Amino acid sequence: MSRDTTREAARRDALRATAAERGLDAVLVTNLLNVRYLTGFTGSNGALLVRADGDDLFGTDGRYTTQAGTQVPDVELVVDRSTVPALAREAVRRGSGRLGYESHDLTVDGLHGLERVLADAAAGGTVPELSSVRRAVEGQRAIKDDDEIEALRRACAVADQALAELAAEGALRPGRTELEVGRELDARMLALGAEAPSFETIVATGANSAIPHHRPDATVLRDGDFLKLDFGATVEGYHSDMTRTVVLGHAADWQREVYELVAASQAAGRAALAVGADVVAVDSAARDVIVAAGHGEHFTHGLGHGVGLEIHEAPGIGQLGAGTLAAGMAVTVEPGVYLPGHGGVRIEDTLIVTDDAPELLTLTSKELLVL
Amino acid sequence: MSRDTTREAARRDALRATAAERGLDAVLVTNLLNVRYLTGFTGSNGALLVRADGDDLFGTDGRYTTQAGTQVPDVELVVDRSTVPALAREAVRRGSGRLGYESHDLTVDGLHGLERVLADAAAGGTVPELSSVRRAVEGQRAIKDDDEIEALRRACAVADQALAELAAEGALRPGRTELEVGRELDARMLALGAEAPSFETIVATGANSAIPHHRPDATVLRDGDFLKLDFGATVEGYHSDMTRTVVLGHAADWQREVYELVAASQAAGRAALAVGADVVAVDSAARDVIVAAGHGEHFTHGLGHGVGLEIHEAPGIGQLGAGTLAAGMAVTVEPGVYLPGHGGVRIEDTLIVTDDAPELLTLTSKELLVL
Repeated sequence: MSRDTTREAARRDALRATAAERGLDAVLVTNLLNVRYLTGFTGSNGALLVRADGDDLFGTDGRYTTQAGTQVPDVELVVDRSTVPALAREAVRRGSGRLGYESHDLTVDGLHGLERVLADAAAGGTVPELSSVRRAVEGQRAIKDDDEIEALRRACAVADQALAELAAEGALRPGRTELEVGRELDARMLALGAEAPSFETIVATGANSAIPHHRPDATVLRDGDFLKLDFGATVEGYHSDMTRTVVLGHAADWQREVYELVAASQAAGRAALAVGADVVAVDSAARDVIVAAGHGEHFTHGLGHGVGLEIHEAPGIGQLGAGTLAAGMAVTVEPGVYLPGHGGVRIEDTLIVTDDAPELLTLTSKELLVL
Repeated sequence: MSRDTTREAARRDALRATAAERGLDAVLVTNLLNVRYLTGFTGSNGALLVRADGDDLFGTDGRYTTQAGTQVPDVELVVDRSTVPALAREAVRRGSGRLGYESHDLTVDGLHGLERVLADAAAGGTVPELSSVRRAVEGQRAIKDDDEIEALRRACAVADQALAELAAEGALRPGRTELEVGRELDARMLALGAEAPSFETIVATGANSAIPHHRPDATVLRDGDFLKLDFGATVEGYHSDMTRTVVLGHAADWQREVYELVAASQAAGRAALAVGADVVAVDSAARDVIVAAGHGEHFTHGLGHGVGLEIHEAPGIGQLGAGTLAAGMAVTVEPGVYLPGHGGVRIEDTLIVTDDAPELLTLTSKELLVL
């Protein structure tokens, strides 16, 4: 029943190297997605102690003893209802002098509890010194390996297929409601093998399409309206993200104009995805197209974001972002123009940054579709 | 477009009263579900400042300006990409001397950022003193009002209906896989109006049924096996939770015995749900039945938990719990007996504690079903 854990072992070694650079004897990983990334464990309660000497410890509660044995066969298991205190006690017992922790994940109460446990476990001896590792694991996660990219490909393919089937069946037609369309899209993705939708599916028609993150409601699809669909599927924990905007019945000139503008902006953004590109410059490449057309104020959000075990993760691509792109990053490119009270268009793909042109994972056509 | 916000206003007033009791001028609510509970806001980024003088502030980013106007028309809106710093600056500007915050929600980094913003905003003047309000809002949330109970009723009805339809259609038959059954159950709940499954649906057959939280896999359903289904639907953000265990084809004597034992334990647990009952005593009422039959070691988890905007919330019902039940609490009762390598049975309902007998929300029969 054991699986190949080479991948996760290599990830722990990378974190171990970071810990060594920072003079830490061990790192306590509490963020559950980071724990999953470093161990393969998919349960709802787990923590990991990565130790400089290589003797790592994985903690979970009794519900997951069997699952941990299957998913994490290569890390010593500590079964305890309270995983963080249990691992903290082990860290003291094994003489960790400097202990890294995730200050962006641990709550204020969690830190106080950890400090108490360390002091108690030291029993008058040396209490380990706590030091944040910041987002070290998130930094690793930003670069996807082949298995992760394959999971993202499958997640994107499920979303492509679900939309294609609904369009072919005439499910996106006047008279239906946003909620009905959203639920069908979700159900179809599940039927096609998704574990879950990537996030609450956005279906926005008519004036609602001018609201960037409209929640689907009982609004009825009408002839001549925009229909904006922003959705994705989760496969093996990895999230796809795609937006397409179609027109129902027939497209008016203003709709074609807005659509072509956003499509041109999105193409410019995709073209700017390159190893070493600054994330602010990538955002600008797409934004400049919209600004030049006089619609800068109607593009009210950043251009894109990383996707992976989270729907939003590093890197952020926007004017407030920082850093450069690297090969293996999975990112979205999603400019939008929103005309309040009238309607809006967003076009979004998920892509992989490579040494050559980016690999497009969401393959649904970006021609203006009139349904 | 504005909605009736009487309910949320009353909830904020209750928190205001708690703040006053604790000598706080304002409370900064960062937990997103607590923000939803106190405002009705369903977006993915929001924070709330509840002020002693009644002038509350709700913060979200530009994506949600329109949605905030519709969902939270009765609270002054602050639009800012960084909601917590924005509300903190307003707290200083309006002269809050003691500021409550949620130490179980705010991360260590979040607290440090908050402290910096407060010091900067005070600009040499008095910096507000921070003090944790602990789980004050979670305490309020444990007691459900009529609207919340109605949402839970509907969520439970969706789960009941989905299971009834699948059983009637013969979807739970030998030859199918756990994954297929799980996905159909999820898709059916969505088709019946669920926003999402309450959690990752558990489908466990044969020896897998002895694993309390088994994740559905390619295991094939076989004649004579247990089939354990633990699942729920989310409606208006409220989660239902139900487990039923059936037998495929025919039930062996040992299966009937284990089933009847768990059913008797579950009935005892339900009968113990009363206003003022100690949660440890409620757990014992069900556990004693299993212990008396010699299976105490095979019931490896607590008896139940509160449900609402979260699938697990206050109160916890178990030997490590504390406190008593009150009218309006929504809880699960879910004893199980797990025989490693053979199979296990869990039976779980969602119920409302009332001054009379508890109201049963999950109405699917608990007779041993042989499919």
